[in-house]
Amino acid sequence: VPIPTIKFYLREGLLPPGELTAPNQADYGDEHVHRLRLVRVMLEVGRLPLAAVRDVLAAVADEAVPLHDLLAVAHRALALRTVSDAPPDATAVREIDLLLRDLDWEVASESPARREVAVALAALRRLGWKVDAETLRPYALAADALAGREVEYVGATASRAESVERLVVGTVVFESVLAAFRRLAEERHSALRYTRAAGNLH
Amino acid sequence: VPIPTIKFYLREGLLPPGELTAPNQADYGDEHVHRLRLVRVMLEVGRLPLAAVRDVLAAVADEAVPLHDLLAVAHRALALRTVSDAPPDATAVREIDLLLRDLDWEVASESPARREVAVALAALRRLGWKVDAETLRPYALAADALAGREVEYVGATASRAESVERLVVGTVVFESVLAAFRRLAEERHSALRYTRAAGNLH
Repeated sequence: VPIPTIKFYLREGLLPPGELTAPNQADYGDEHVHRLRLVRVMLEVGRLPLAAVRDVLAAVADEAVPLHDLLAVAHRALALRTVSDAPPDATAVREIDLLLRDLDWEVASESPARREVAVALAALRRLGWKVDAETLRPYALAADALAGREVEYVGATASRAESVERLVVGTVVFESVLAAFRRLAEERHSALRYTRAAGNLH
Repeated sequence: VPIPTIKFYLREGLLPPGELTAPNQADYGDEHVHRLRLVRVMLEVGRLPLAAVRDVLAAVADEAVPLHDLLAVAHRALALRTVSDAPPDATAVREIDLLLRDLDWEVASESPARREVAVALAALRRLGWKVDAETLRPYALAADALAGREVEYVGATASRAESVERLVVGTVVFESVLAAFRRLAEERHSALRYTRAAGNLH
């Protein structure tokens, strides 16, 4: 990591200062290096805004924050990047409520992702797509299988610090992994269907 | 949609001008309205940068662009928003190549999503996570099942214009739908595991 980047993170409060060893020299230990990597994952892989990274780090540092609330902080940070600020359509919101109830998913009514799905559903309808909650169900079920493993992995460690990191890093990084694999899979299915020379793409 | 927003889209070249009916009045037909909705989906749901929306619209308008290439244009637009500009780690890139070969997925070597997965894998390793291509495989398989349906839906119409729209809108909107459901599913599994009062969250 270039020095100006580290100085920038220090100025932005994303990294604690190192131990001064001389007026113009500071020493950074293993913990600093790890924190630096955590910051970079959130910025470079998660593409979170700086303020969102600060919020997540503050929640990570506060041992009084329960894991479930920490997940909400990480989700709010991710939502800043992607969730529409368009007003949700009341019919679509109701349909998503019903789908979530039918799936028997317990999620808070204020979760931004709930609104995001409703906004997507309403936007598709305005474009004339014949979609309803059933169109969305396969996405919910695929996501559920992955999320079940993730939460299990978060809990499969004795140390709170490790659980916290698994939770924050996992939710941020695997969101981008899943989106990237979906694009790759779309590309491969499209190649199979639309290109004659699919065998020559390597 | 507020008038200043429409004027902004016109200035930015995202909407063609309406038919002038008076010096200060223009008439917009059904096609304009539909185009406006398309632009809004890409901006509001897809959160694409303006320049990316312009690129996608130009490719949509050009009937010489094959569907498979149009998908690449849409993916590049999505990648602008999320793909890291960090240099990919050569070992991770090689592992993803091997995974894709093992999955028998034909994807172009320059696809940005390929790099995105490698960047994520390398970042997790630097944080000390014991991950390899096998950790990623469930994400690839889940994405593959969804993408297979999507490409089938794109092809299940006789009109090229309709296929084009299904392709562009589908890849953009369902990326956000999938990410949103994953967050909701994480929340529900976390509630089951970490909150005592999971039954009171409604």
